[in-house]
Amino acid sequence: MANHDSWLDIPKGSHFSRANIPFGIITTSSSVEKHAAIAIGDHVLDLHEFARHQGFMELQDFPATHIATFSQPSLNDFAALGQDVHTKVRRYLQNVFAKETPFPGVLRDNTETQRASLFWRDQVTLHLPMKIGGYTDFFAGKNHAYNCGCIFRDPNKALQPNYLHLPVAYNSRASSVVLSDTGIHRPLGQFLDNPSATESSFGLCRRLDIELELGALLCKGNQLGEPIDVNEAEKHIFGLVLLNDWSARDIQAWEAVPLGPFNAKTFATTISAWVVLKDALDTFRTPGMLNETKLHPYLREALKENVYDMNLEVELTTTNGETATLSRTNGRNLVYSFAQMIAHHTIGGCPLEVGDLIGSGTISGAEPGTLGSLLEASHGGKLSYDVSPTIKRTFLEDGDRVTIRGWCGGDHSEMVGFGECSGTILPAPKPLWLDT
Amino acid sequence: MANHDSWLDIPKGSHFSRANIPFGIITTSSSVEKHAAIAIGDHVLDLHEFARHQGFMELQDFPATHIATFSQPSLNDFAALGQDVHTKVRRYLQNVFAKETPFPGVLRDNTETQRASLFWRDQVTLHLPMKIGGYTDFFAGKNHAYNCGCIFRDPNKALQPNYLHLPVAYNSRASSVVLSDTGIHRPLGQFLDNPSATESSFGLCRRLDIELELGALLCKGNQLGEPIDVNEAEKHIFGLVLLNDWSARDIQAWEAVPLGPFNAKTFATTISAWVVLKDALDTFRTPGMLNETKLHPYLREALKENVYDMNLEVELTTTNGETATLSRTNGRNLVYSFAQMIAHHTIGGCPLEVGDLIGSGTISGAEPGTLGSLLEASHGGKLSYDVSPTIKRTFLEDGDRVTIRGWCGGDHSEMVGFGECSGTILPAPKPLWLDT
Repeated sequence: MANHDSWLDIPKGSHFSRANIPFGIITTSSSVEKHAAIAIGDHVLDLHEFARHQGFMELQDFPATHIATFSQPSLNDFAALGQDVHTKVRRYLQNVFAKETPFPGVLRDNTETQRASLFWRDQVTLHLPMKIGGYTDFFAGKNHAYNCGCIFRDPNKALQPNYLHLPVAYNSRASSVVLSDTGIHRPLGQFLDNPSATESSFGLCRRLDIELELGALLCKGNQLGEPIDVNEAEKHIFGLVLLNDWSARDIQAWEAVPLGPFNAKTFATTISAWVVLKDALDTFRTPGMLNETKLHPYLREALKENVYDMNLEVELTTTNGETATLSRTNGRNLVYSFAQMIAHHTIGGCPLEVGDLIGSGTISGAEPGTLGSLLEASHGGKLSYDVSPTIKRTFLEDGDRVTIRGWCGGDHSEMVGFGECSGTILPAPKPLWLDT
Repeated sequence: MANHDSWLDIPKGSHFSRANIPFGIITTSSSVEKHAAIAIGDHVLDLHEFARHQGFMELQDFPATHIATFSQPSLNDFAALGQDVHTKVRRYLQNVFAKETPFPGVLRDNTETQRASLFWRDQVTLHLPMKIGGYTDFFAGKNHAYNCGCIFRDPNKALQPNYLHLPVAYNSRASSVVLSDTGIHRPLGQFLDNPSATESSFGLCRRLDIELELGALLCKGNQLGEPIDVNEAEKHIFGLVLLNDWSARDIQAWEAVPLGPFNAKTFATTISAWVVLKDALDTFRTPGMLNETKLHPYLREALKENVYDMNLEVELTTTNGETATLSRTNGRNLVYSFAQMIAHHTIGGCPLEVGDLIGSGTISGAEPGTLGSLLEASHGGKLSYDVSPTIKRTFLEDGDRVTIRGWCGGDHSEMVGFGECSGTILPAPKPLWLDT
């Protein structure tokens, strides 16, 4: 059954309803240079071609320089135009697709523009939506932090002393951020064979894990030395993506003292292709997890509904084609908002830039079946986790395909979702010189 | 007294002898777009203008596309041409400046080209030499690691178990890398007033420190999933700069568990302006510090002379104009080479890119007066360090100017040096909203 509010056949239950209008970067057989598009139902609207066919002619006060951003190889220039422009373009495109569109000549009744710019989604090739200059990964999923603390330390001291005072984070590696569906090579590295080993071993990671996260992509930066006010920080957010922060737990355990995770995280981080604009998510705001600590003023956010009521799930598909749900949780399981993360990131003066990616940290619920990593589900690798009656995992096996999905709404409203964030584990490519 | 081997007056003791030929990015009153230059004595040769005046006409097999890289706003495109090209251009420019130059018409006897392209160094404005995509900071100064371990832990267990097995590192923040002479605002942040405090305080960093490091800038990257062979890794190095990894020790102590330093490092990192090419440093190779650990094959470097015999010093100038040497040490105080750092960085598959910056970690000797940070000199802030009879410091004060210098050779040979890497501590700009 289709949604009834569009002249386009948008399947009921599509993540890409007319309420969404997420932006991405595509190539097509006719336009081989990367350029912008939106996802709508099972289609994409190619914004470069749409613009070439005067698709934006009914959008008031939208100069040619703005239109030109849709022909760029990333969304950075469009993002940098600011939220007022994003809002305006999204609303215009919602109107273009409305059943009783005020602009029928632009697309609905214009078969030439349709032919040039409206494609089935599986006809186009997707690319990273933004040129990501910096990627910072936070640790704002309090259940995840607590669960990890229980695994590695005393449950009574599971949260580190700083945890409820500031959003803990580390700089991660922007160059290894890849698009959904990129194969993930199992990394080589050093680790201890067992906790009492005194010599490290070298080889393929044996404890390969996922981390279910949300990523925020920025549309506005700040100057060196100029912190961003927490109550202004949302103006810096272009939109959100799903993020899988693949983690090599054995490499991490050995390398991370005293300077934090490094190679354990830099072999790949996967993000979903379609950026769901901040606007599209506003309807689904909800308060985050309770933090009873009296925060310093720079982290005190006026808005209490500062995270999203968002369904999140992780699915595992094995090499023999079995599929099972590894986890089901909700985006509300964060104790700091993206606005608080941005305020903290910049309080010392660090400059953020358009296109920067901010990871939320792993989002876990409190119960089995709601956990965002196998580290938690397997109690630190001690117990095999029953993903299904026939699929058991402590960590990922070669050939495993992991798919994260996330969406808001859907019961009695149109869905605003991300599509999928997927990756399949491939064996490491063994460099020849390793034999020497 | 001048060097005798050039027609240009190159002062004896200049870091920028004809043996050096370091590359940088400048603007001038006549060429206001950023472009490339080399430093030579107290002059710079503006390569954009030099090229416009056919300065490269005597350089064989050097196409217009190569020459065009000198008009780019960063050295990235020139660096990406590869070391063979860097070698060739450096040798050519050495010949251009030779007293008995084989190409007298190019510059020596060409007053028009001289007038257009040869400037006093203090007449031009310097800019960051490269567009830095990723900045990774290692911890390869073994004395520094040992000294920090003694301060924070038991001297008998000063080095962490992993330290001699792999070059420990963390991803730092490329967007906060600034050029020498940029003012450094004392950062705001959270810290504990004393080690037994249970509530954090917020305010201006009270333990602001330096870290004396070398930085390597890359001219060649690798693909995701393709590790770089340690014995091929030097081909990825464009050249070196001096690096001051300013550090907020109180913020670091509070924030860094469990994911490593973050805001303590991301308010600013200063690098020197002139990139000294790998070629220019090759004469000064020397073995690094002894590591008796049997390294895994991917870290076993055939070349034993894998670091540089390089004089390093840190000078402190106070607000009343007093100047004293805070530290004198040597570049040989590293237990891992840049090649080993690159091999380790990529062993899991992390892609490096042209323009990436790799910090060595703090370079300290073993004795007082040879330490690369005030943390070490002040025994963790416990003792005031006598920089001179009249200057005492535990950590940096507002108005302090720190200048790092580094050079090779100079006794009976021409010097190959970096010039200066400087910064002055400014009070934090207090955002108005902090009062609320």
